[in-house]
Amino acid sequence: MNQLAGFGIVCGALLLPACGRWPASKPAAKDVAVAAAAARDSKYGLAGWAPPSRDSIPNDSLGNSIRRGLYILRHTRDSLPTYATSSLNCTSCHLEDGTRIEAAPLTGSFARFPKFMARAGAVVPLADRVNYCFTRSLAGNRLPVESREMQDILAYLAYVSTGVPVGTKIAGSKGLLDPPDTLVSDTRRGEVLFSSTCSPCHGPEGQGMPGIPALWGPKSFSIGASMARVERAASFIQHNMPLGQGGTLSWQEAFDVAAYINSHPRPDSPGKEGDWPLGGAPADVPYATRGHVAFNPPASLVARKNPSLALVPAPEPVPR
Amino acid sequence: MNQLAGFGIVCGALLLPACGRWPASKPAAKDVAVAAAAARDSKYGLAGWAPPSRDSIPNDSLGNSIRRGLYILRHTRDSLPTYATSSLNCTSCHLEDGTRIEAAPLTGSFARFPKFMARAGAVVPLADRVNYCFTRSLAGNRLPVESREMQDILAYLAYVSTGVPVGTKIAGSKGLLDPPDTLVSDTRRGEVLFSSTCSPCHGPEGQGMPGIPALWGPKSFSIGASMARVERAASFIQHNMPLGQGGTLSWQEAFDVAAYINSHPRPDSPGKEGDWPLGGAPADVPYATRGHVAFNPPASLVARKNPSLALVPAPEPVPR
Repeated sequence: MNQLAGFGIVCGALLLPACGRWPASKPAAKDVAVAAAAARDSKYGLAGWAPPSRDSIPNDSLGNSIRRGLYILRHTRDSLPTYATSSLNCTSCHLEDGTRIEAAPLTGSFARFPKFMARAGAVVPLADRVNYCFTRSLAGNRLPVESREMQDILAYLAYVSTGVPVGTKIAGSKGLLDPPDTLVSDTRRGEVLFSSTCSPCHGPEGQGMPGIPALWGPKSFSIGASMARVERAASFIQHNMPLGQGGTLSWQEAFDVAAYINSHPRPDSPGKEGDWPLGGAPADVPYATRGHVAFNPPASLVARKNPSLALVPAPEPVPR
Repeated sequence: MNQLAGFGIVCGALLLPACGRWPASKPAAKDVAVAAAAARDSKYGLAGWAPPSRDSIPNDSLGNSIRRGLYILRHTRDSLPTYATSSLNCTSCHLEDGTRIEAAPLTGSFARFPKFMARAGAVVPLADRVNYCFTRSLAGNRLPVESREMQDILAYLAYVSTGVPVGTKIAGSKGLLDPPDTLVSDTRRGEVLFSSTCSPCHGPEGQGMPGIPALWGPKSFSIGASMARVERAASFIQHNMPLGQGGTLSWQEAFDVAAYINSHPRPDSPGKEGDWPLGGAPADVPYATRGHVAFNPPASLVARKNPSLALVPAPEPVPR
């Protein structure tokens, strides 16, 4: 069997030493502020800042909440089967327990919400953003905000944001890094690459295997997930896949395989037509929205970077 | 009529120029970090930090949420009569829109939750802490966490925490400053002082008047509020009352008048017997709790600073 793992893998107990690593040191909040004065070139864009180490989670009630939150992120499907119905866990996309900056990092998330999200057309708190993952990427249902499980998740997100000034966006806060905007994908080339490079772990039908997420079909992420957008998926793949070998695929290869993956059916995302209610849905969103432009949104919202991507046929969603 | 206003006053439109003032400047988050390296002697304990100015609330969706939150804090009773049944507003205790450090400041609150609270015996998120104000100080009911009103309040609390590193406790985070621990209160002396100094605004029966909160009786804060504790009330009074003349009463005078105010009946706080479930209720808590000490809590939790205060008879709560 090929040693390469595809797009997203569960940080289960057996795999922990490989993919559950954290930065070793935990800077105290006051040290962060001091270090921030020195230089501003850290990879997080907040000089001297790094997320605190998992080994530094305190041994108290708050620490236990943080740990429960972390375990839910790693074992989402097993922990909350009612709310996460796909084969994915949070850490399938948020690699290294959400600390990997190239993989939709969770670091700093507690400091940058509430904020306006164009897709929602509203100011949303962090709990709502977490629930977008539950309903879209995990193809499940909203976790009640007042539940202990949600509060534990939020405690973990606060922990990996320790020392980030409230209201500050650190690097990676866009979630996935921007790909070049001139490429045109080819699903046939993508199919060939998928077969050789991705299918050994994700399966020839993209069905995944225990601990490895399905990439399409009824147990995959929904059509409303960011990963169902070719640009976003290409960015994730180029930076992180095959697992442990991020950066080895060319951008063109990443686009091709992302387009192939997203040409297959996957769970529907009820209400998706209400996304981007002020208009401005990015070109790679694989479904129509009712977004009106009567409010004359800024040009940055209506820019469509890759019109050619609209040629990828929108797959038929799988009924839920 | 005496010009002195008593314990807590509403920042209504007419009074805004006097009591709604904010620091003039808004430091950007990055500047905060830089300044923090310079010195650590600011009144907030985070050098160079001050809450952002009200004038700097952005003119966008998030800014509108922040403004709605601020208005709810100022006009709580009028905005949410179902949830705030006393005559108090949030800004009755959290003076200067929650930015006055001597008056249970809200500044930095977004950065220090979730945290363990001994009274609850649990890790609580900020929304729960806000709801303790609704159920106790406002003698009302829990505001649903997912309501727009709660989310607006949280947006305002995030705003006045802008730049405070997540996980950092800035000065004043205890809420009310510690009074000396050797004083013994005298309700008779307190009655005399109340009559001369407080009653002109709060009324001879502590009933308040429009815009000025009742200090006891059915429209006052509940027995479960921090202000129903003599030490906490004395601290608030000494630092802030008469309004605009904080620091003019001696600690002894503040203790005496606090004891007099809290010798009167006020709304009950259902479930109060469950407070401090691990034991260690402070000596000035005016009701019995079932807190057990089987877990052998640390001495700091069981210390009772002012045993003489227990001599103040616990008043009969007003039925709700």
